[in-house]
Amino acid sequence: MTGTGTGTGTGTGTGTGTGTGTAATAVDLLGDDLTVLTVGAELFADSLREQACPVEPVDWRPPPFGQSADIAAVAADPRRPEANRTALERVLAAGAELIDVLPAASALGLRPGTFLHAGPPLTWDRASGPMRGALTGGMLLEGLAETPEEAERVLAAGTDITLEPCHQHSAVGPMAGVLSPSMWVFQLHDPVHGGTAYCSLNEGLGKVLRYGAYSAEVLTRLRWMSDVLGPALQAAVRAHGPVDIRAIVAQMLQMGDEGHNRNRAGTLMLLRELLGDLIETGGRHTAEVVRFVAGNDHFFLNLVMPAAKLALDAARDIPGATMVVAMARNGTDFGIQVAGTGDAWFTGPAQTPEGLFLGSYGPDDANPDIGDSAITETWGLGGFSMAAAPAIVRFVGGDVPLALATTRSMYDITLGENPAFGIPILEFRGAPTGIDVLAVARTGVLPQINTGMAGRVAGTGQVGAGLVKPPSECFAAAVRALAQRTP
Amino acid sequence: MTGTGTGTGTGTGTGTGTGTGTAATAVDLLGDDLTVLTVGAELFADSLREQACPVEPVDWRPPPFGQSADIAAVAADPRRPEANRTALERVLAAGAELIDVLPAASALGLRPGTFLHAGPPLTWDRASGPMRGALTGGMLLEGLAETPEEAERVLAAGTDITLEPCHQHSAVGPMAGVLSPSMWVFQLHDPVHGGTAYCSLNEGLGKVLRYGAYSAEVLTRLRWMSDVLGPALQAAVRAHGPVDIRAIVAQMLQMGDEGHNRNRAGTLMLLRELLGDLIETGGRHTAEVVRFVAGNDHFFLNLVMPAAKLALDAARDIPGATMVVAMARNGTDFGIQVAGTGDAWFTGPAQTPEGLFLGSYGPDDANPDIGDSAITETWGLGGFSMAAAPAIVRFVGGDVPLALATTRSMYDITLGENPAFGIPILEFRGAPTGIDVLAVARTGVLPQINTGMAGRVAGTGQVGAGLVKPPSECFAAAVRALAQRTP
Repeated sequence: MTGTGTGTGTGTGTGTGTGTGTAATAVDLLGDDLTVLTVGAELFADSLREQACPVEPVDWRPPPFGQSADIAAVAADPRRPEANRTALERVLAAGAELIDVLPAASALGLRPGTFLHAGPPLTWDRASGPMRGALTGGMLLEGLAETPEEAERVLAAGTDITLEPCHQHSAVGPMAGVLSPSMWVFQLHDPVHGGTAYCSLNEGLGKVLRYGAYSAEVLTRLRWMSDVLGPALQAAVRAHGPVDIRAIVAQMLQMGDEGHNRNRAGTLMLLRELLGDLIETGGRHTAEVVRFVAGNDHFFLNLVMPAAKLALDAARDIPGATMVVAMARNGTDFGIQVAGTGDAWFTGPAQTPEGLFLGSYGPDDANPDIGDSAITETWGLGGFSMAAAPAIVRFVGGDVPLALATTRSMYDITLGENPAFGIPILEFRGAPTGIDVLAVARTGVLPQINTGMAGRVAGTGQVGAGLVKPPSECFAAAVRALAQRTP
Repeated sequence: MTGTGTGTGTGTGTGTGTGTGTAATAVDLLGDDLTVLTVGAELFADSLREQACPVEPVDWRPPPFGQSADIAAVAADPRRPEANRTALERVLAAGAELIDVLPAASALGLRPGTFLHAGPPLTWDRASGPMRGALTGGMLLEGLAETPEEAERVLAAGTDITLEPCHQHSAVGPMAGVLSPSMWVFQLHDPVHGGTAYCSLNEGLGKVLRYGAYSAEVLTRLRWMSDVLGPALQAAVRAHGPVDIRAIVAQMLQMGDEGHNRNRAGTLMLLRELLGDLIETGGRHTAEVVRFVAGNDHFFLNLVMPAAKLALDAARDIPGATMVVAMARNGTDFGIQVAGTGDAWFTGPAQTPEGLFLGSYGPDDANPDIGDSAITETWGLGGFSMAAAPAIVRFVGGDVPLALATTRSMYDITLGENPAFGIPILEFRGAPTGIDVLAVARTGVLPQINTGMAGRVAGTGQVGAGLVKPPSECFAAAVRALAQRTP
């Protein structure tokens, strides 16, 4: 059946040739073998389609943030295509093997009074509640203060205290991400590029240091982790030999995990890998150790994170590359680092996640976004692979269509797909990988992050989990810095 | 936009009032407040819709199999709605707890020379290669023969040999499903209805007895399972107390398993549950035991199967109910049992699966469908929950859209949905549960089964995995038997 129809369309847009007219006129003018590019209102395109005129709609908008001149300069940088190709190739090629478990003092050379923390650089006076809580707990754990009040006084005075980002020391830490000398860390190695990365051992959920809690229960658990868990894992890993973490990540995406807020299958696969050696090298605490690991669905997060860091560190320092190599939050600022701009941080105010709350907690209890764990999204996991983990919506909020739509939209701002990380429901399409600051600035599509929520008052612990995005300022600033470095 | 159109439609069908006419005429005759039921060609309905006449298309076809008179009799049985409601309620309410691990001799009272097998009743002369292979292995394992040749002679003669279906003894067995006295079994209990069900321990994949292999390697593994694995699991389960298998099944559907050919997450969650007790009650073989379980992604299948049997046994013997309570194959016949027809088997020839083959095996090497494991589909898992496990297509063949479409089509032949078994990608819609033989006969939609494939020559073992459907004869025969029992 055929029909006739007429319509008028009004195009909107800035700076490109759109206009107003009746579709019928356009078709008369164009003849049979031309295609019309349309920008703006859909009515115009619809009207052309009804007249059987080929239409190619262009989803163009003015740059939502960032200066057009900066964007133009970066877009025109002749080094960019090759630089980004190299950056993405390195990320995709990187391996990640767990090779040892060690105290942070020996692994990272941390000395008493030095604390590593999540996110970009931070001083005590600007630190949020959960960051202050975690640092206070760190002081008590290290015996540098007797009471929380004394700890806060010393931290505020800053004498003999050093605060530095984990990222500056080849490390990553979830939530507050506080690392002090007596805590134990996983050591991961990238056999392809030779990198090393470290991460703390995961404490579980609820009242835990990384969410800003520092009660006796928290410190007792941390001491047990240093005295029992760390040494048991060390013995098992050394007996086992390198554990291929990237291979477990590939499998967990087929098992409903997205590697940031769902790590249930990953945790069980790690346990499966180490179990025989844990039993053979373990002593009377083995049952206790395996119950602790098996009872914590997030245990594997602290292995996904350093695996991601290894891959992204391999892509650092490539002049002209516009790929993000770190997204990290300290509870006050959200910061990104980019392959083409060295160790510079581009920051903006951390946003407060929206999501689901534990018990009687509500939105007013939530601290702004915190933690190095957004390194998982930077690697193509977490929010970027939500389609692989539809059940995550029961933990972070949203619904299943949102999970699918989120992953699909992340392809718009990434440089490629990771064939090793196939997302089953998308017919094994690779996870969207390599965030391009230029694409973010051009499209206005911001990276989607799944995250835990810390209580904003020091000492509270976890209050929920939700969804959050970076502030657009980070990307505008990164584009500006890249523009300034164009040849 | 409005338009005018005319069309002619030719309805096809048997025995109901469809015919030929122009749509315009129909509308004139009907007036404004009537709705037209259309059957057959869509043109007719389209034409009516164009004239703004409400249309209710009926997807009616002649019954694809089964006699119309039988179908009509069963459909008209006044007991049917309530009987099916009761049947479904019992299936949904049933619990499944692992309460013990025991030798089959004591658990099932099996005596030397008695072998339980998968599927409906079978005699040696009609047994397929893998069934003969597994029975031969059982003879060797029990010391009833010295060589495979001697075993086959004794089995063929049948003196002092008893072959009975697992289902007849509250048991289920994957593939050949052969159970002999010295093998160990899981014992499961339904705390709601009081039922008990048993299943063997899973040997792993490849050259294993249940796929018809009986080499020294197979027998050595089975002896180790009886001497070491069974007792270790018994000690752990007794120390642990009841393990909630249904709860693990609910979780595995959120982790990419469908409970028939993917049991990876289920296996790891079972291990997580028992690990502490395995270590605390275990001796020098503990590492060996956990490595065996952890290294076999299908280990948990042998717990899903008896859990399914418990739920479906709770719905047996409900007069008028048309729900399937067992689908099982012995390698020669496919049989079903129905809630309204007691222990009668309705059989047809087992079909040969299509799918993916191991190594150099191909379609000619595959035996027809075999095993009690289709009890998982009868419970709403396996092929019925393929949408929860898109990665399964890499094991059984097909593609991701097929996995989604399969689950969706199973809703057409089931009595309800299991809210405890939410399928994440379908926005947590419950698994399609309770196959209705009447719906199968009316729609011609056959249950979809995911299955392993045994080599058709005795002794071969597994050759692949694939997709298969029951023969329609089972359902036609069941409908006939139900019709004969109507009041």
